[in-house]
Amino acid sequence: MERQVIRYSFQPGPAQLYPEIAHHIQEALNEGLLSRYHRDPVWKDLYRSAQEAVKTFLKLPADWLVLFVSSATEAWQILIDATTESPSLHFVQGAFGERWHTLQKNASSFAFAHPVDENLPWSEQIETTSQKYAGVAFVGAVHVETSRGAFLPDLRALREAFPSALIAIDATSSLGGLELPWEAGDIWFASVQKCLGLPPGLAVMILSPAAEKRYKEYPRLRYNTLSYLIEKAQVHEPPYTPNLLGIYLLARSLLDRPSLNTIHQHLETRSRHLYQALGEKGYVLPVPEAYRAPTVILGAWKDAKEASEKTKKLEKEGLYLGRGYGKENQTHFRIANFPALPDEAYEELLMRF
Amino acid sequence: MERQVIRYSFQPGPAQLYPEIAHHIQEALNEGLLSRYHRDPVWKDLYRSAQEAVKTFLKLPADWLVLFVSSATEAWQILIDATTESPSLHFVQGAFGERWHTLQKNASSFAFAHPVDENLPWSEQIETTSQKYAGVAFVGAVHVETSRGAFLPDLRALREAFPSALIAIDATSSLGGLELPWEAGDIWFASVQKCLGLPPGLAVMILSPAAEKRYKEYPRLRYNTLSYLIEKAQVHEPPYTPNLLGIYLLARSLLDRPSLNTIHQHLETRSRHLYQALGEKGYVLPVPEAYRAPTVILGAWKDAKEASEKTKKLEKEGLYLGRGYGKENQTHFRIANFPALPDEAYEELLMRF
Repeated sequence: MERQVIRYSFQPGPAQLYPEIAHHIQEALNEGLLSRYHRDPVWKDLYRSAQEAVKTFLKLPADWLVLFVSSATEAWQILIDATTESPSLHFVQGAFGERWHTLQKNASSFAFAHPVDENLPWSEQIETTSQKYAGVAFVGAVHVETSRGAFLPDLRALREAFPSALIAIDATSSLGGLELPWEAGDIWFASVQKCLGLPPGLAVMILSPAAEKRYKEYPRLRYNTLSYLIEKAQVHEPPYTPNLLGIYLLARSLLDRPSLNTIHQHLETRSRHLYQALGEKGYVLPVPEAYRAPTVILGAWKDAKEASEKTKKLEKEGLYLGRGYGKENQTHFRIANFPALPDEAYEELLMRF
Repeated sequence: MERQVIRYSFQPGPAQLYPEIAHHIQEALNEGLLSRYHRDPVWKDLYRSAQEAVKTFLKLPADWLVLFVSSATEAWQILIDATTESPSLHFVQGAFGERWHTLQKNASSFAFAHPVDENLPWSEQIETTSQKYAGVAFVGAVHVETSRGAFLPDLRALREAFPSALIAIDATSSLGGLELPWEAGDIWFASVQKCLGLPPGLAVMILSPAAEKRYKEYPRLRYNTLSYLIEKAQVHEPPYTPNLLGIYLLARSLLDRPSLNTIHQHLETRSRHLYQALGEKGYVLPVPEAYRAPTVILGAWKDAKEASEKTKKLEKEGLYLGRGYGKENQTHFRIANFPALPDEAYEELLMRF
């Protein structure tokens, strides 16, 4: 199959890689790092460096624990396996939230869902759900619903509404791009191929001391039971042979980036510009303004002909647009506003759009 | 931490990479392949190419199904989740077989184990177990027990002994190095960082038509339920965002290798040479001859001083030896006899040993 070379990918994951990644991969190969035993002192040191790089870059509290799994999807399942007996509530805003909730329901008798109503204020929904589901022990929420370019505008409200529940946030399209209110959640996770700008095949999981304490005694029944992942992460080892290259790239590249605060400000400004420019070009922006994600922008094509023509034209120029998700892949487009993409990429995109 | 550059890794996984891997990674980066949506036509085509490359290289029957998961450890769990109600028997020859059986026992009430007795002939044990465990519906066996450099000398005997069971073979340290008797098993799997000589973080699973038929209707409860993996593999898609680089490297590199028959003959000859040379140097070879694996060679150090001195000396020359597994990491050494290593590597190793 003939393939167009991609210069700039606006696909919201797998996404544009940071340009220095190629160089870091070459370093790892030159040193033979990918042929070393994953538990030898060199890899324990690199594993620890990756944990620390994540903590420093994200400005996590010192006593939080960072560990690595193979995907954010696996992270859902790991949490589900640890909470089968907990009544839970999931906030659902699109396909990913729905899938997480479905998997939880498959394993647990009391897995409730609140479909977010984007015509109502978030604060109102928080109030209703906090009363209706006051007893839940576990709350799951997807911060940025990548499939729809929608997001939950205020995560802190979750903590206020469910003060005694453990709160897990799927931060897949925000971690590494937006500053996150760590105190609002106990467990955070994200795959590395979104705002972190790395090749796919790895995810970061972050646990507060409360989450670590809650899950570390859970019986170890599976190869990836959370208690076992915690035990191994504490001694800077993976539970099984992992995607070592991904761990190396985290260790090696995160600390060379601008500060997360700088990145966040930059993405906020750029997202306002992008939403405005698309609106001015006459595109319908399907998500109500209060729920529009700063990192994934959803627009509607005028018709199928435009969708096909523009997508092809852009790809010929090396500009790879995100399609709409699932059934909407012919009617909608998505533009990732991720930090690995330079402003020039968006200027070129808007010029040719 | 100061790190020695590895020229030749004899570690039995993560192991020596094929030398062309660096070039193929660069190609994937230049084309922007790792920034493409994993379900777009280009990736469906690459996924299919990887499936076909595996089938061609391994000389699999045309109607078998190839799919990709994140590790051989995950493959154990996927199979366990699909067989919780089946009485099962595991042949255990070391740490990996034991771990697989333990995970099966955690999920299933009738998970039997036969610890292989290396002082008895294999045929005798096959006969005993086929009588004792005649009713089992699932048989699990690790072909090469990487932790101990031991192997099961004849897999065909398993099929004869358990003609109506589904037989699953963990071929982690043999797939891609040895010719395998496909008709002896229904499910085969291996991680790519052993004989396949690729970076870690991916595993290949292979299903016979019987296995595909047996599992494809199994209720989909988890993100990686086997029935769902089968459904997606049939349309050349991953179930979630996978390690795309690993899939690309399979698609791109397998068909440039010598034939599996040539590789097999080469490894057989080289393993005889290695066992003999180590014996002549006075090293104890702990595994009885009939059970010695051709692909992973286990030897015993004379004492702890020799272990530490030789390992360090070799590493200074860029030769990275495998340690003994787990508690034996100070008393034993392991030498991978994998195809990505050239004969010169072993000549140099033996000269300096």
